[in-house]
This record gives sequence, C-alpha cells and structure tokens, in this order.
Amino acid sequence: MQNASAIEHPAAIAQNYVEVWNETDGARRRSLIERVFAPQASYTDPLMQSAGYDALDAMIAAAQAQFAGLRFSVTGRQDAHHDVLRFSWALGVEAAEPIACGTDIAEMTPDGRIARVTGFLDKMPS
Amino acid sequence: MQNASAIEHPAAIAQNYVEVWNETDGARRRSLIERVFAPQASYTDPLMQSAGYDALDAMIAAAQAQFAGLRFSVTGRQDAHHDVLRFSWALGVEAAEPIACGTDIAEMTPDGRIARVTGFLDKMPS
Repeated sequence: MQNASAIEHPAAIAQNYVEVWNETDGARRRSLIERVFAPQASYTDPLMQSAGYDALDAMIAAAQAQFAGLRFSVTGRQDAHHDVLRFSWALGVEAAEPIACGTDIAEMTPDGRIARVTGFLDKMPS
Repeated sequence: MQNASAIEHPAAIAQNYVEVWNETDGARRRSLIERVFAPQASYTDPLMQSAGYDALDAMIAAAQAQFAGLRFSVTGRQDAHHDVLRFSWALGVEAAEPIACGTDIAEMTPDGRIARVTGFLDKMPS
C-alpha cells in the first residue's frame, strides 16, 4: 500500500549513519561523513545544529566527547517513502537501559546520500 | 535542556491541523487551510502528496471521501524545536481502536503557518 520509495536500503542507511556517530578516529570519521552525507548536508535536533562536512564533523566529535564510552545503535524498524527515511536510535552501553533515545528524519539525495537530518528526542539525555 | 523553539503553541498547531482534516464543509475547510498552511505549503506521506491550497484541499477532500465517518485526533505529546514540530494522530471513530495512526513532521513559517508536512504511518489504514 505504501508508495514505492526511491530509498532502496533504509536499514543500511540508518546503520551507516550510526557508524558515523560511533567512529572516534578522526580520519575515519571524516571519510565516513563524506560517504554518508551530501556536501551541504544539514543536521538539526533539539540540542545541536550544523551544516557541511566540517561543521558536521566538529558537532559529532563534540557529542562523542560529551558521551564518551557510549555508543549509538539503530532501534526498531526503519521506514521510508519518496526521498525521506525515518529511523530510531538509542545511546548507551550495551545491555543497559539507554541514556537517550531519538527518532531522526533523513532526506536523501538521488545518489543515496543524506541531504538533511531533522532529529527528535524520545528520551532526553540523563 | 531543549533549545527554545520559535514555535510557541505546538498543541494548538496540531489541533488546528487536525481540524482541517476533519472539516467536511468545503468553504470552511478552505478557509481553515488558508489559516493553517502557507500558500505554497507541501504535504508528503507514504500515500499522498500535494502542494498549494488547491491541491491540499483536493487531497484532504479525497481522504475524507475514502474514510467517511472517521475523524482524526491528536494523540500523545507534541514536541518542537527550531522551526519544526512533531505530533502524532489517530484516525477512527471515538472510543474504538483507530484504523490508522501516524506521526507528522511540520515545518513552520516565521508567521506560524505550516510550510511543509512530512508524514509517516505508524499503523497502516486497515
């Protein structure tokens, strides 16, 4: 019943996205960012906002410093239609209650990179 | 902890939006649409897509014909940050299990009208 989406692999996109947030090696993180995001990609959630590779990279590095030792994981199902993708994530240590959860809406470019993320928090960082 | 949002009354916006979907009188619906949406506003969910007052009105009228006798209601909480608002809704008859549920992301204009809706279905129409 859902319209076919141009997004072929929602789960893979969500997984790649979370890998960016988990990659603490600066060079590898930058390389992942350039693979996953379009050059002018923007990110907005209740706590952070940035646009472009340099700013995305600095924002993610700052989040990693704030939440050192924690990892992001994809939770639940991903759904996509047209050029938009929705997925949920959790932040925490394995096998423990996550300290934060959220749902992100990603708009994709025709070449399969993220052009824009709008994030919402389902559980605020404690 | 959340950044202040430019959106002052998320609950009222969600309520007004749902009223548009429930208004079956053509003239009143059009008047509500022009109050709630910006002129070039667009709507995209897995099943429908439209932009501009005429297309929004035709799309909503078609949905009402398809789901005659059912009403939309706002469910759960609404949350907003920057110029975006998230809210969830249900479609059904009062006091019965809804036939469909969804979550919409609305981008607002500075004058408080909806510029863009991206909708997701949490429960598909049965």
